[in-house]
Amino acid sequence: MKKGCPYGTHRVIEPKGALPQPALKINNDMEIYDNEILIDVQTLNVDSASFTQIRQEAKDNIEEIKSIMKSIVEDKGKHQNPVTGSGGMLIGTVEKIGPSLEGKTDLKVGDRIATLVSLSLTPLRIDEFVEIRKDVDQVDIKGKAILFESGIYAILPDDMPENLALSVLDVAGAPAQTAKLVKPGDTVVVLGGTGKSGMLCLYEAKKRAGVTGKVICVGSRDITIERTKKANLADYYIKANATDAVDLLEKVKEITNGEMADVVINTVNIPNTEMSSILMTKDGGIVYFFSMATNFTKAALGAEGVGKDINMIVGNGYTKDHAAISLNLMRESEELRRIFTELYA
Amino acid sequence: MKKGCPYGTHRVIEPKGALPQPALKINNDMEIYDNEILIDVQTLNVDSASFTQIRQEAKDNIEEIKSIMKSIVEDKGKHQNPVTGSGGMLIGTVEKIGPSLEGKTDLKVGDRIATLVSLSLTPLRIDEFVEIRKDVDQVDIKGKAILFESGIYAILPDDMPENLALSVLDVAGAPAQTAKLVKPGDTVVVLGGTGKSGMLCLYEAKKRAGVTGKVICVGSRDITIERTKKANLADYYIKANATDAVDLLEKVKEITNGEMADVVINTVNIPNTEMSSILMTKDGGIVYFFSMATNFTKAALGAEGVGKDINMIVGNGYTKDHAAISLNLMRESEELRRIFTELYA
Repeated sequence: MKKGCPYGTHRVIEPKGALPQPALKINNDMEIYDNEILIDVQTLNVDSASFTQIRQEAKDNIEEIKSIMKSIVEDKGKHQNPVTGSGGMLIGTVEKIGPSLEGKTDLKVGDRIATLVSLSLTPLRIDEFVEIRKDVDQVDIKGKAILFESGIYAILPDDMPENLALSVLDVAGAPAQTAKLVKPGDTVVVLGGTGKSGMLCLYEAKKRAGVTGKVICVGSRDITIERTKKANLADYYIKANATDAVDLLEKVKEITNGEMADVVINTVNIPNTEMSSILMTKDGGIVYFFSMATNFTKAALGAEGVGKDINMIVGNGYTKDHAAISLNLMRESEELRRIFTELYA
Repeated sequence: MKKGCPYGTHRVIEPKGALPQPALKINNDMEIYDNEILIDVQTLNVDSASFTQIRQEAKDNIEEIKSIMKSIVEDKGKHQNPVTGSGGMLIGTVEKIGPSLEGKTDLKVGDRIATLVSLSLTPLRIDEFVEIRKDVDQVDIKGKAILFESGIYAILPDDMPENLALSVLDVAGAPAQTAKLVKPGDTVVVLGGTGKSGMLCLYEAKKRAGVTGKVICVGSRDITIERTKKANLADYYIKANATDAVDLLEKVKEITNGEMADVVINTVNIPNTEMSSILMTKDGGIVYFFSMATNFTKAALGAEGVGKDINMIVGNGYTKDHAAISLNLMRESEELRRIFTELYA
């Protein structure tokens, strides 16, 4: 059996020496190396920015969506959207475990797992499409995937339905990072607070900012704002277009008496929201960019352009114990669990 | 006289409601608004990533470089490279000050200044090219530019030549941020440490990390590594291709006995160096991305893909007092001043 690198570089076809994520093409042959895990895939949870782009390109036609997804995987050996660069995650069943992982992994054949590494670096083969659930970015398939030795995963919990767990794990990094960033008394704005990761961030921010803090939810539609309000996830609600920096600046200025936010968490899956995030932040404050639609140069030059001394952080989908932290929100909050079950599971 | 917005939104032609930096086109008519400053431009210091791209596109032909630069400004009303998204900065003389800035600014007509906001948001008109200094990314022109009310600038110091001050101010954010990030005892890697901002970062990192710290310089060419070594800017030197993540991982592992770096500062102006930066960082460490060639998604998904719990920060060209901090390096270090004078001034 062939020996693999922990990071999966042995699967990279082009360019040579690259890692699987930046690689243009990886080998999706399903014969495993000695340190790989073979997964029988059930569901792909496509990254929201990626799926939005695919739906637009396909004009929302199901057959067209399938054909785009199929050609992405044929081209690259992985489901990495060529426009957004992003992937998503998957759930499935452990089918084979490479012999050199024995004693190193707590997994066994037959375990139901979610992979917590991006599809943008996961060798994948799609044999058949079973169901496309457009509104939740989920696609059931028959197919196989490979998990590398350094790849992170979560064994699916048995006290909640799999699709519920998957929808939470998909954005697990966001609430876990929020928990680590927000301090008591902070003013926090969640841009895209009515969305999937946004609601989890709001809940976590409110818990951490406490009674002396201010948590502000920005959403773009009445219906989703109403839903978030009902669940009491924030202290203030703003209806606005997330790309309208000047409008948001004025609205947050009013709520905060001109003080602006200590922490802005951006979870919006559309482009051009960098300046809004920057203008809402006070000097010395933090912008956490979770959106895969974030443009690095727009953020870097945007802050400089308006002379703002703020910390802008690249959202890292992984932080220690993020799966446990985020899954626990479904146990902690009945409201969140009800909403997530209704919308995504 | 027309009243302007502090952020310059009154100059945006397309799309409406955007800020000048993300805008596709801004108005470069040189009749000032009440809160603007008109500058008689002498030198453009084009962002290194941008100028590298322009030189490549022009196959290094001087007339072709002029024609590309001219058409960028004609299209956009500002010198924002359409490929890299980045700008640069300029020096010139204050020609007019809008009346509503009286008492708000310390500038007066005739002052020699460097603008510290990006050219990617600065209304600019190029009337004539005077000299193109390819090797230092500087272009002397006859032309005019506008500084907005929120725009930052530095009055040029009189104890050093203007071109020397300009070359330092161009990358002023990098050493100032390094000063704020690095703590005594830290292991610091500067990727691109032999370059302009890289050398300033090394100097600042060594000062902050102190005798118990380790400062590692990564460069790609013998000649520039030799120069940096002679100036004693780092404790260790690695010659490597900045995009070769696996090679760099091994080399930094060896120097640090497997501990890896607390802080990695990326100042490399080529794409695909995100993974190298991530793999060299220890869990809980920091990557500071100063390179305008950084890709947000590659960084975000790269860290997740290898399960690294690290903080990745978007390099902010502005931080409080960055001009003063960086100019002072030219007074503090004879070696740096000598190198900068030779290379850039």
